[in-house]
Amino acid sequence: MPFSVLILGAGSATPVLNRHPSSQLLTYESENFLIDCGEGTQFRLLENKVRPGKLKGIFISHLHGDHYFGLIGLLSSLNLGGRTEDLLLFGPKGLDEVLTLQFKYSQTPLQFRILYTPTDTSASTLLYEHPCFNVYTIPLSHRIPCAGFLFQEKPHKRKLIKEKITDAIPFDYLRQLKNGEDIYDEGGNLQYSVAEYTLPAPPPRSYAYCSDTRYDESIIPIIRGASLLYHEATFQDDLAHQASTRFHSTAREAATIAQKANIGQLLIGHFSSRYKEVDTFLTEAQSVFRNTHIAEEGVTFNIPSTPSTDVSLLPDT
Amino acid sequence: MPFSVLILGAGSATPVLNRHPSSQLLTYESENFLIDCGEGTQFRLLENKVRPGKLKGIFISHLHGDHYFGLIGLLSSLNLGGRTEDLLLFGPKGLDEVLTLQFKYSQTPLQFRILYTPTDTSASTLLYEHPCFNVYTIPLSHRIPCAGFLFQEKPHKRKLIKEKITDAIPFDYLRQLKNGEDIYDEGGNLQYSVAEYTLPAPPPRSYAYCSDTRYDESIIPIIRGASLLYHEATFQDDLAHQASTRFHSTAREAATIAQKANIGQLLIGHFSSRYKEVDTFLTEAQSVFRNTHIAEEGVTFNIPSTPSTDVSLLPDT
Repeated sequence: MPFSVLILGAGSATPVLNRHPSSQLLTYESENFLIDCGEGTQFRLLENKVRPGKLKGIFISHLHGDHYFGLIGLLSSLNLGGRTEDLLLFGPKGLDEVLTLQFKYSQTPLQFRILYTPTDTSASTLLYEHPCFNVYTIPLSHRIPCAGFLFQEKPHKRKLIKEKITDAIPFDYLRQLKNGEDIYDEGGNLQYSVAEYTLPAPPPRSYAYCSDTRYDESIIPIIRGASLLYHEATFQDDLAHQASTRFHSTAREAATIAQKANIGQLLIGHFSSRYKEVDTFLTEAQSVFRNTHIAEEGVTFNIPSTPSTDVSLLPDT
Repeated sequence: MPFSVLILGAGSATPVLNRHPSSQLLTYESENFLIDCGEGTQFRLLENKVRPGKLKGIFISHLHGDHYFGLIGLLSSLNLGGRTEDLLLFGPKGLDEVLTLQFKYSQTPLQFRILYTPTDTSASTLLYEHPCFNVYTIPLSHRIPCAGFLFQEKPHKRKLIKEKITDAIPFDYLRQLKNGEDIYDEGGNLQYSVAEYTLPAPPPRSYAYCSDTRYDESIIPIIRGASLLYHEATFQDDLAHQASTRFHSTAREAATIAQKANIGQLLIGHFSSRYKEVDTFLTEAQSVFRNTHIAEEGVTFNIPSTPSTDVSLLPDT
């Protein structure tokens, strides 16, 4: 079951030519969801040969422009492209008001419905239930109401051992075995055991997206053990104080969160435009949490199904 | 006195990768003004090495997204960049409301003032008076309130003939001569004649910007004799009917307006994304009005000071 995230933009607020404002495309099986939608995101989708018409839903973390100014353009283009299918939209209170006003003045009659759910930016709550995964908000510590998103895959069923399965076993029994239920005959004797006929289910995968936030350990219990974490890293150690006063994080802080939350793999991005080279972000983060990668634009990261194997360099305090 | 327009974007509403939404940079001497501001315009400014901080004013023709969705991002970046200087903003009623709402939710305290003037989209009125030029609205025939802009240079003074000017001529006399006033001595005899000491002033230049509009001859008296006209040409002859019902123009119609209005030079753009080649637009327009050019992105067009020399192929009916 493919579960991946394509980085469309991982720049910060100041516009530069070599990075784009925040946006990521989350793919689960064949379904696409957008996470944040900075200015120009619809062009990033085109560049990456993603058909925007296939988007099922959009998650907006907060209403700073570099995270959502591309949304109205994308929605307008979806409409122009003839979309009629409902679109899910999640974001802080006020997002609907902004969109409604813009559609009013462009006199755009929308041919599809936008099913909007405001996000709870003050507590981690279940935001959306998909047949295969749940999405929870991650309250972040930023200048304005802001919530990241935890995409938590639902537990898989156990896997049948093909070699052991014969036509003699009724279909209902197979279903029960996959659900971890032993099968007993009428006399109460064990007929088919879960242990013999199935393999353990692969561990559920999860992706935590933490866009703009100050270092905040209160998110750790929410994201604990996530397979993949994207955490912003706007600054480096040299500007740690500035990171704090501006409600942003350093690369070291992002890595510390990953280490303390026992994350499988860390992606960092949202680098301040004042830094011309990004390698130093990686060095700083990897000194704390080795399994760190740059959220490089145009790159797809698979959400790993293996649990964390990172041996952190910092003790878990 | 440099007077030019740089094409930043000349695509139409459907997003494509090889064209960008509408935006142009008008430069008069050393001052910059933006005309329309489609999504991504701030990145086009960067690409063209234009410092957005130096913008004096922004003119928005109408509130369809491909003409203004880049505005809020640009204004946010100007603020982030530390701008404190007032910014002039012109556009249809409602534009201020959209911006105010977005700034409210991003909790952005603006460090500069936006001096907003709503445009009159129903009649041609004086919108802005600059020391060197006036800007008038050009009511356009589109699906929503829409006005183009006529940048009309003020008459120049006559030019002094350097070789004839000596220190003996008082400064006040020079000023009078440049204003076209002959100088008489106390006895009423002609002392310095305008004809002898000056050359005629160069004709004032003008630029007419007609973004989205159906073919509409009512604009002809407003733009008559303009040095340079940008007129949209979304379709070609094959889709003339569609052009009309969608409130857009064909290349032939744009050229017919130019021909009938005795324009000096015509730029066409806003081509529908269904046409992969733009040369056919040019051929179609040039069959009516020879001095037509494609509004190619990244190209600067000088506003010519010479009057129209185009020999049109159609009779002026």
